[in-house]
Amino acid sequence: MEHEFGRVTILGLGLIGGSLAKALKAKNAVREVVAWGHRETSLQTGLQLGVIDRYSLDLADAVHDADIVVIATPTLIAETMLEQIAPLIGPNTIITDVASVKGNLQRAAERIFGQVPSNLVLAHPIAGSEQSGVTAAKADLFVNHRVIVTPTDRTSAQALECVERMWQCTGADVSSMSVDDHDDILAATSHLPHVLAFALVDALAGDPAHRDIFRYAAGGFRDFTRIASSDPTMWHDIALANRVALVGLIDQFSAHLANLRSAIDRSDGEFILKTFSRAKEARDQFSDMLRGRAANLSEE
Amino acid sequence: MEHEFGRVTILGLGLIGGSLAKALKAKNAVREVVAWGHRETSLQTGLQLGVIDRYSLDLADAVHDADIVVIATPTLIAETMLEQIAPLIGPNTIITDVASVKGNLQRAAERIFGQVPSNLVLAHPIAGSEQSGVTAAKADLFVNHRVIVTPTDRTSAQALECVERMWQCTGADVSSMSVDDHDDILAATSHLPHVLAFALVDALAGDPAHRDIFRYAAGGFRDFTRIASSDPTMWHDIALANRVALVGLIDQFSAHLANLRSAIDRSDGEFILKTFSRAKEARDQFSDMLRGRAANLSEE
Repeated sequence: MEHEFGRVTILGLGLIGGSLAKALKAKNAVREVVAWGHRETSLQTGLQLGVIDRYSLDLADAVHDADIVVIATPTLIAETMLEQIAPLIGPNTIITDVASVKGNLQRAAERIFGQVPSNLVLAHPIAGSEQSGVTAAKADLFVNHRVIVTPTDRTSAQALECVERMWQCTGADVSSMSVDDHDDILAATSHLPHVLAFALVDALAGDPAHRDIFRYAAGGFRDFTRIASSDPTMWHDIALANRVALVGLIDQFSAHLANLRSAIDRSDGEFILKTFSRAKEARDQFSDMLRGRAANLSEE
Repeated sequence: MEHEFGRVTILGLGLIGGSLAKALKAKNAVREVVAWGHRETSLQTGLQLGVIDRYSLDLADAVHDADIVVIATPTLIAETMLEQIAPLIGPNTIITDVASVKGNLQRAAERIFGQVPSNLVLAHPIAGSEQSGVTAAKADLFVNHRVIVTPTDRTSAQALECVERMWQCTGADVSSMSVDDHDDILAATSHLPHVLAFALVDALAGDPAHRDIFRYAAGGFRDFTRIASSDPTMWHDIALANRVALVGLIDQFSAHLANLRSAIDRSDGEFILKTFSRAKEARDQFSDMLRGRAANLSEE
């Protein structure tokens, strides 16, 4: 049987890279999965678990003759990886990634290559788990999850199709949009909520007067602050990588909150009720939409 | 068999009042449950479902000879109820309530009675459901949920003990604290998170540029914004009733967010990482605490 993809090289074998490898191998869609990383123990584990076929600690060796190179390192390191593989790969190798922010990597590509290369297809699988590392990798991690690809005018149709097919192979639901739209949408639906949750928990936990408050917190607080248990390093990377969009949204949110604060302060019940009612209506529509799609949602 | 409580009168037969009645009757702890309300259909339904023993549309008749009067109306209406029952009840009747804010009711009591009466024991069961009304009432709604009582120096020991025993009868875990502590703690763990969730969803839904964003929202956003589906009228009442504590906390949170916003804007990775790490540590401790107690948490 002909494999749909030849050699796929994963740079950084963690939860996402490992799950992609497992999904492609489970579908028998790839001839060979090669991994590269700094920590040999992760690579050895991946090999023992059958997640990958072989690994190399030498980047040039790992990407040699690869059909697809997937940069699956943390967000900020992805820029460095792009720079390091630039002189090592040929024009027929497709480069893609899995980072949560796309603008910083596109700007890095412009800096490194002069312009965004036609064989670079940035992508973002919106999936994750509370666990991390290759041992947590699951072949079905992306099933019914959204993957956003962000091609440019210069992206080759063949490279785009190849990356889209690779993700469809994992069971993901692939959408396409511009880099700017991606970063704006993710800033609103993911990056801003994380910043607000981190800020709230830190504000409350840091005040000695509130030391005891968590004892009295109920279910609403538990759900609202769950994302403040996310990996601080990953979210540090995301905040820096999507800095401009995120700061703009924090400002927009802060202005909105300031208006609501003033209304509460002056006991303007009409303003408060209108705001809360609009929000409930929008959130209920979102719930209906979720029920309408068979999505297996989980934290990014 | 001797009933522990004689006649209990519920003013406002909704989810909370109805569930309290059901819990007391399930334990055979009450001789008679009487209900009063504006909407006779709710009262008729409560009678048909066996939640109450009888009802009256006449307030004086409903509270006559009651051992305990439970004000279970919406938060702001509770102040009016206190005023209306003041001339109708004798010194041996214990008055209590179930509202989410205690300070506004204590101030109302001082205004109405000259000082907080010794037979008034304000209380707050931290429990609820996405459903409302007497048809949603459940005898086990309060099992393992926290009920906070807020006695003053003038509260009679007998009245306090009676209200505490009534809630223990429902399976609740009863704590005691001052009115100010209650309102500060609830502002932090419940009222502020609700305001932030309402503000975020309204800010995003109101911006035409973001009309489509909910399509791309994942599990983190769903959990973070769930409380924005809460009843706008109830939360309007709470925001007004706990205005001072809430505005103070919004200011404290906004200052915290402004610092984080500046750090992101100037790419201060160290500040960002420290803040996120502190928040994650505090949130993880909260998770451990939740696992440590067999609480059946649900939204307030």
